[in-house]
Amino acid sequence: MSEMRGPISKVRLQRRVQFSETDAAGIVHFSVFFRYFEDAEHALWREAGLSIHPEESAIGWPRVAASCEYRRPLKFEQVFDVTVRIGEMTKRTIAYIGEITSNGERIATGIWKIACVNRLPDGSMKSADIPADVATRLKPSA
Amino acid sequence: MSEMRGPISKVRLQRRVQFSETDAAGIVHFSVFFRYFEDAEHALWREAGLSIHPEESAIGWPRVAASCEYRRPLKFEQVFDVTVRIGEMTKRTIAYIGEITSNGERIATGIWKIACVNRLPDGSMKSADIPADVATRLKPSA
Amino acid sequence: MSEMRGPISKVRLQRRVQFSETDAAGIVHFSVFFRYFEDAEHALWREAGLSIHPEESAIGWPRVAASCEYRRPLKFEQVFDVTVRIGEMTKRTIAYIGEITSNGERIATGIWKIACVNRLPDGSMKSADIPADVATRLKPSA
Amino acid sequence: MSEMRGPISKVRLQRRVQFSETDAAGIVHFSVFFRYFEDAEHALWREAGLSIHPEESAIGWPRVAASCEYRRPLKFEQVFDVTVRIGEMTKRTIAYIGEITSNGERIATGIWKIACVNRLPDGSMKSADIPADVATRLKPSA
Repeated sequence: MSEMRGPISKVRLQRRVQFSETDAAGIVHFSVFFRYFEDAEHALWREAGLSIHPEESAIGWPRVAASCEYRRPLKFEQVFDVTVRIGEMTKRTIAYIGEITSNGERIATGIWKIACVNRLPDGSMKSADIPADVATRLKPSA
Repeated sequence: MSEMRGPISKVRLQRRVQFSETDAAGIVHFSVFFRYFEDAEHALWREAGLSIHPEESAIGWPRVAASCEYRRPLKFEQVFDVTVRIGEMTKRTIAYIGEITSNGERIATGIWKIACVNRLPDGSMKSADIPADVATRLKPSA
Repeated sequence: MSEMRGPISKVRLQRRVQFSETDAAGIVHFSVFFRYFEDAEHALWREAGLSIHPEESAIGWPRVAASCEYRRPLKFEQVFDVTVRIGEMTKRTIAYIGEITSNGERIATGIWKIACVNRLPDGSMKSADIPADVATRLKPSA
Repeated sequence: MSEMRGPISKVRLQRRVQFSETDAAGIVHFSVFFRYFEDAEHALWREAGLSIHPEESAIGWPRVAASCEYRRPLKFEQVFDVTVRIGEMTKRTIAYIGEITSNGERIATGIWKIACVNRLPDGSMKSADIPADVATRLKPSA
């Protein structure tokens, strides 16, 4: 939790394919795209002065659903952009839309939803309202 | 490519959560579920006497789309079952449906589609018909 | 913690290379060998009726050091054996030796050491004696 | 292969721990440190105007050995520096030394060696001399 900023709805990051992210087909393994999107999502939270996983917090944000459409492959050392924006916020969930592009071409599109939960002492999770501190710092993009 | 067997439409595997698959929330990272499903898909191919990625092959099978719904988390050392079945086969694509269960509870459901491509000398991919050898060994589940 | 068995010093597992473990060089990424060894180490603990990471435990087992020598590559779908044995146990550390072989050929050799720690409420770790329950169920191999 | 620069012997990168790199102990999984070091190694090659894995190349650079000593854990979102320098170059191998630090504290030290190989049509690898183009762009640090 750092200083207050206006609510954030979008982030854009540039990164480069690392060797360990590729597979024997010579391209980025399809499961890695979900890490690309998640990394950008968490950067969006930091932009908003938040951490999605502060130490000692009883609040958690598990994925409810995640999907990705793949249009073109990414190769080792290829530079690409990841854009993530908040598509919708309900009282207890946040839905995101992500785009990966490279050299002006669409590579992949992702959609995923996280839910706010309380992590109970017995290890289980219980749906919970998004804390006010989070709800005021994030907002859906227009 | 091994001996001929009847066409295969489904596989079921039991496995156990490994430590490196967990994250700081104490549960399996959501992106790992896609590896669980893919591992089972490739086991289905082996059951059919096929490899999805034989050495020297000019044919490839990139993901066109992948999605997962998460109902319950998996924890370190938890034993679970992965069932994958072929939902649909067209001339050039195969769609799968996967279920992860543990102790009789539904954990996650996945849906994904792969496309048959020729990998051209310049590194690009071109949509191609599914080879007869593959089409006769795999079939959609009833 | 399950029923008592004689102390365990060694485990041997057979497994198969999964696609997501390979890289663009067409072989298993070198960092994945450490996961192969760790998975077998944890299986050794289970053989001894133990879990290396029980829920709610204040005890942890971070790596102090890990190394691997690579002799031959592993490829997609290759079947291999992982053998892990306890090389040494001190009051506060356990050292392991691992071997990966395939078709009778040596693929890789690993050596690593874990230390017993107490995880303090502030998130830091403090060296601790190996609990008696663990010390009696594991022993160095002759 | 880009424009010529003076030979390079060292690189320093800053990065941040991503959520998927953590494990259920709440810290970066020990195997991920090898990816941190490798990513920096490949950045060093790019600094020298080289790629360690150009498409269509018959030359490969498998790991011969890799090791890491862990002093302190890294946690989610922690910022850290990775420094990699070339320790030794022989006619056919390159040895690296890596350091990870955070807030002025030593986190981990890595040592690893890669060997130059020709990848033969049958998929096997054969030790080879380091190409002149590479040998003139990289040099051991003083």
